[in-house]
Amino acid sequence: MDNFRIALDCMGGDYAPDEIVKGGVLALEEFDCDILFIGKEELIRQVLKKYKLRQDVNIINSKDSIEMNSSPSSVLKRKNSSLYIAGKLLKENKADALVSAGNTGAVLAVGKFVVGACDFLERPAIAVALPNKLGKKTVLVDVGANVDSKPRHLLDFAVIGHTYAEEILDIKNPTIGILSIGEEEGKGNDLVKDTFPLLKETKLNFKGNAEGRDIYNGNFNVIICDGFVGNIVLKASESLGISLIEMIKEEVIKRPVSKLGALLMKPAINAFKKKVDFEEYGGTPLLGTQKPVIITHGRANAKAIKNSIKITKAFLSHHFNERMKDNFEKYIQPALKVL
Amino acid sequence: MDNFRIALDCMGGDYAPDEIVKGGVLALEEFDCDILFIGKEELIRQVLKKYKLRQDVNIINSKDSIEMNSSPSSVLKRKNSSLYIAGKLLKENKADALVSAGNTGAVLAVGKFVVGACDFLERPAIAVALPNKLGKKTVLVDVGANVDSKPRHLLDFAVIGHTYAEEILDIKNPTIGILSIGEEEGKGNDLVKDTFPLLKETKLNFKGNAEGRDIYNGNFNVIICDGFVGNIVLKASESLGISLIEMIKEEVIKRPVSKLGALLMKPAINAFKKKVDFEEYGGTPLLGTQKPVIITHGRANAKAIKNSIKITKAFLSHHFNERMKDNFEKYIQPALKVL
Repeated sequence: MDNFRIALDCMGGDYAPDEIVKGGVLALEEFDCDILFIGKEELIRQVLKKYKLRQDVNIINSKDSIEMNSSPSSVLKRKNSSLYIAGKLLKENKADALVSAGNTGAVLAVGKFVVGACDFLERPAIAVALPNKLGKKTVLVDVGANVDSKPRHLLDFAVIGHTYAEEILDIKNPTIGILSIGEEEGKGNDLVKDTFPLLKETKLNFKGNAEGRDIYNGNFNVIICDGFVGNIVLKASESLGISLIEMIKEEVIKRPVSKLGALLMKPAINAFKKKVDFEEYGGTPLLGTQKPVIITHGRANAKAIKNSIKITKAFLSHHFNERMKDNFEKYIQPALKVL
Repeated sequence: MDNFRIALDCMGGDYAPDEIVKGGVLALEEFDCDILFIGKEELIRQVLKKYKLRQDVNIINSKDSIEMNSSPSSVLKRKNSSLYIAGKLLKENKADALVSAGNTGAVLAVGKFVVGACDFLERPAIAVALPNKLGKKTVLVDVGANVDSKPRHLLDFAVIGHTYAEEILDIKNPTIGILSIGEEEGKGNDLVKDTFPLLKETKLNFKGNAEGRDIYNGNFNVIICDGFVGNIVLKASESLGISLIEMIKEEVIKRPVSKLGALLMKPAINAFKKKVDFEEYGGTPLLGTQKPVIITHGRANAKAIKNSIKITKAFLSHHFNERMKDNFEKYIQPALKVL
């Protein structure tokens, strides 16, 4: 049995440290794992006092905490912060993964520059698994770790996405598309046009250009793109989802008979909301780093933190980084030698 | 009273020529305008025979028609096609606007290279008005006419969007944002970082970076972006909208009580669908060309064509191109002199 050591940044997030520590306790009670609680020891102990714990808890004291509005570059100088210390534990092989609900830019900076990229990749990337019309998931990589990516970086995103689909979503030999503005080869911007022939050279199950609509219709298992585009699409989608529900509500309020209908439909709407609730997924992973870094939503409560730790465990028990390395050697490296 | 001459490409679209001609007839009956029916005269006359027309109809015969899967570049060589002839009528000032449900790439090519850009702009762009959470509209420019745009092109998109918001949506001094991946100045890719200071120099009501979520939350009246990003966000949004409705349906089917609820909610859902149905808007305009070019959905039926002609009339009666020129001189030109 693996005994994973998960570094939990207890000082990051809107409800830190209370909900973060509480989430860590829930995870300890439910899952088999070691959690390193990193933060102001006194504050952590205050929260822990409320629980009867069956085991000793590992606390690593930190003097400094990154604010939700700190600039990502400043974070790299604040070496006494809980987040920086957590990153360093990964780098020094004293922890196997990092979970933080701190500000995304700061967690990204620590992931990219403190933990660092895997030796075989140039750029880590953020992957999300979005629900599609077929009732399955589509992996979108990168959704915000990189802007102005180069073709070589998109190959990294492809192997990250491929491994995510195989290991976490259990999709064998996943189909891969590159996000563009037209199906045919030759359509797209310079980055797409330059990356397309490289992807054809790899041994990945590359199916050509994907369009915006393909993100939600299930035509591809994995879609890769520059993080600028991916981030905008993701945030627009979240916002559109919320807006659509608001718009339906508005129309319902206008019609008394619809109000009754809405009441009767409530269980269905709730089930649906749960399905598309990006927070239910328990954090977004930055992958391609020396060890996985899980970015949890800033508004994460204890349950969300517990879910994040659950997904972190999934990455670790699948030996995600080893599989990614195998896949890189099998699918990408032969192409790089040709190029 | 203006007497606008609208060139209608009768051979473009999945239901051409029947539904297109029929849509033109509906427009003639409802609105005050001249329609130039361009296509195979014999086919057009066959459709017209079914109607008692109160007036003579202008038909311009064309020997060739662009297929829905023709490559955009081939279109520019097919000078006898209805679409090319329509574009040429605009160029030669023999028509005031063009409506086509033909393949988007082909219509774009004709708009950009046959009709051509306004003298004061470098790049025409496609603008859409998307419904936002505030029950208003947000204008997004460009959604697909340009890839790998330069900062100067984004200034063109800004004046196109500003004029659209003022003239068509009746929003005075509209707020303008540039689509990026973070609110603060300095966040984004190279294009955003290079365009941001130029936008600050203009006299537009520039409010800084917009994020993906801002497209649907109503925080900006106009959001500008490269057409690669805009196209992907738009197509992802359309597809997500459809998927969400499918997912709700699926949850409803599982629950008998919800089925009754769904029945009672139907009027609200239909009103909502109408609100977010991109086809209801009656076509997407390519603006910044010598004369407006309205791209109607390939699946357009007669009603959609009629709606496209209606929106075309709105652009013409607002003297859109003259207003755009005024705005360019007032808001953009002083900045260009400084730069």
